[in-house]
Amino acid sequence: MTRPELYAVVMAGGSGTRFWPASRRARPKQFLPVWGGRPMIAETCARLAGLVPWERILVVTAESQTELVRAALPELPRANILAEPAARNTAPCVAFAAEEVAKRARDAVQVVLPSDHVIHPTSAFQATLVAAAEEAAAADALVIFGVKPDHPATGYGYIEAGAQTEKRGAIPVHAVARFVEKPPRARAEEFLASGRHFWNSGMFVWRTSAIQAALRAHAPQIAQGFARVRAGEALARVYPELPSVAIDVAVLEKAANVRMLPIDYSWSDVGSWAALPELHPRDPDGNFPVLAQDARLIAEDSSGCLAYAEGDEIIALVGVKDLVVVRAGNATLVCPRERAQDVKRIVERLARDGERYL
Amino acid sequence: MTRPELYAVVMAGGSGTRFWPASRRARPKQFLPVWGGRPMIAETCARLAGLVPWERILVVTAESQTELVRAALPELPRANILAEPAARNTAPCVAFAAEEVAKRARDAVQVVLPSDHVIHPTSAFQATLVAAAEEAAAADALVIFGVKPDHPATGYGYIEAGAQTEKRGAIPVHAVARFVEKPPRARAEEFLASGRHFWNSGMFVWRTSAIQAALRAHAPQIAQGFARVRAGEALARVYPELPSVAIDVAVLEKAANVRMLPIDYSWSDVGSWAALPELHPRDPDGNFPVLAQDARLIAEDSSGCLAYAEGDEIIALVGVKDLVVVRAGNATLVCPRERAQDVKRIVERLARDGERYL
Repeated sequence: MTRPELYAVVMAGGSGTRFWPASRRARPKQFLPVWGGRPMIAETCARLAGLVPWERILVVTAESQTELVRAALPELPRANILAEPAARNTAPCVAFAAEEVAKRARDAVQVVLPSDHVIHPTSAFQATLVAAAEEAAAADALVIFGVKPDHPATGYGYIEAGAQTEKRGAIPVHAVARFVEKPPRARAEEFLASGRHFWNSGMFVWRTSAIQAALRAHAPQIAQGFARVRAGEALARVYPELPSVAIDVAVLEKAANVRMLPIDYSWSDVGSWAALPELHPRDPDGNFPVLAQDARLIAEDSSGCLAYAEGDEIIALVGVKDLVVVRAGNATLVCPRERAQDVKRIVERLARDGERYL
Repeated sequence: MTRPELYAVVMAGGSGTRFWPASRRARPKQFLPVWGGRPMIAETCARLAGLVPWERILVVTAESQTELVRAALPELPRANILAEPAARNTAPCVAFAAEEVAKRARDAVQVVLPSDHVIHPTSAFQATLVAAAEEAAAADALVIFGVKPDHPATGYGYIEAGAQTEKRGAIPVHAVARFVEKPPRARAEEFLASGRHFWNSGMFVWRTSAIQAALRAHAPQIAQGFARVRAGEALARVYPELPSVAIDVAVLEKAANVRMLPIDYSWSDVGSWAALPELHPRDPDGNFPVLAQDARLIAEDSSGCLAYAEGDEIIALVGVKDLVVVRAGNATLVCPRERAQDVKRIVERLARDGERYL
């Protein structure tokens, strides 16, 4: 079977606060080199090398971030940066990208990827992607990637896998029994034990015609919005009026032809500073340096610490354990790894009285 | 009794490492605003206001630090900055300054002060200083200030006070029974309990003629060196050959006419970052911000932390206790307050392989 010509849609409109002070309003997480030494969005595109050439990668981002995308992805053709006139969650974003793919190729298969996940090994990811593209092309399915849980996470939505319907290469293809909201702890433990539950990764593969048909069926407001754009109305006028909703909720949970392919290798959506130590090897001192090329960590009797620095800077640790220490721009953050989720409280306070640090 | 015309000699040649990264080779501790918002040397001179005008303050420093002195003390006449050709500890420094005072005034009384101590209240210090100057002028004594201990410190030399010989104003004047080296803990506790032992503060008051006579008697190499300079030899040639020795050891421990005046108010030589919380009031969160005017600390569920920042910068703490967090230039330091003395280990390592951070 010949491989279908694959497009990629990279969603880069996010503006989280959990990586403050490295992530700022003007530079969200996907532009940070939190893993692999390159901005996360560059790692995301590099993961497609050999399968999707730059000409077939579209990046959807905010108007204000188009320059950041250019800087992070110098090989990306400028016409492949799609600027959303407003942030409306992923369903309008997917519909927007599908319109653009449709202009470039007759009913191509496309993979839709968040720009700020860490996945490895790349070879395993590419095998899953090839299988998903084959499934999407052959069965006209809406394919979602489900991550095999390794702990009872309460922060993700789950997909309960149904029967295996197919095998593509070595990769099983499953029907989807149901989508489940973020569960309480006890439920998450049942899910982990069941072997049938997978984290909703937010990564999708489908034909343009399949997702557009599904949008018309399950998210008619969005489909009609793009019909108006096709008829000549300005995107900048239509887009802000579209419902702000996730593509999973708007379409996937309602559609019949959904398939799930499992990811049973390393995946992380890198939800906070606390996620980084799990992705980085320890250095000989037992710390986790996440450093720009010129930056340095010097640790004396310290271990388990994540140290992040961006420039020609040094972080010195003496006698501390399991801290997150971040030096970025005009700010320095110190917190225990297990409190990393509370960084958002700092951001909330700064939103009230410290704008210049956001 | 009219007050003698008082000179001040401020010794600013130090180059410690214990305040790294705020103190660097090119900017030792005395130039840091660790207390009161001004460089320590400026605070030291301000403490003399009303007693010693700028025209009678001499600052002895390293060649390389004269510009720092000018910047820190804009009111100081340039001719009052004495550059040591080499660092030779305090005895040569005292002798050098005495020569210079002798050129300016016939046998004036001078107070010799380190540039990096914190003392308050200023009014109490000035009362002690006035009494010491009277004693030096009237009794031709070499006066040393002894600090009444408030804990059994093992890091200071002690002075055992002898009988009270005099009272100047409200200030008792004591003979000195003996000087004692830094004691072990048990001994320090005995000293604390005795009520007769005081920390050697390294602050002195004497007439030019008295210290010069004492140098001739007890440190003849140094006295002869300055005799050669007086005869026309270059200071730059003589000075480096002088013995590197403290004035206490070279002269005070040997001289007969030594008197001690007690300091029973707040004094600190600010020996490490750990000393600063004792000098600063807690903020409402229970932390100790030592911040430049534009700098900010934001603390979430954190207490007991010393936060030092120099520019338009923010330090954010989440869920941490009793840490020292310093952001200065291209470096950030994080360590528990009780480990602050180990910062020198970082400096030692950087001396081997990280010069650009020193």
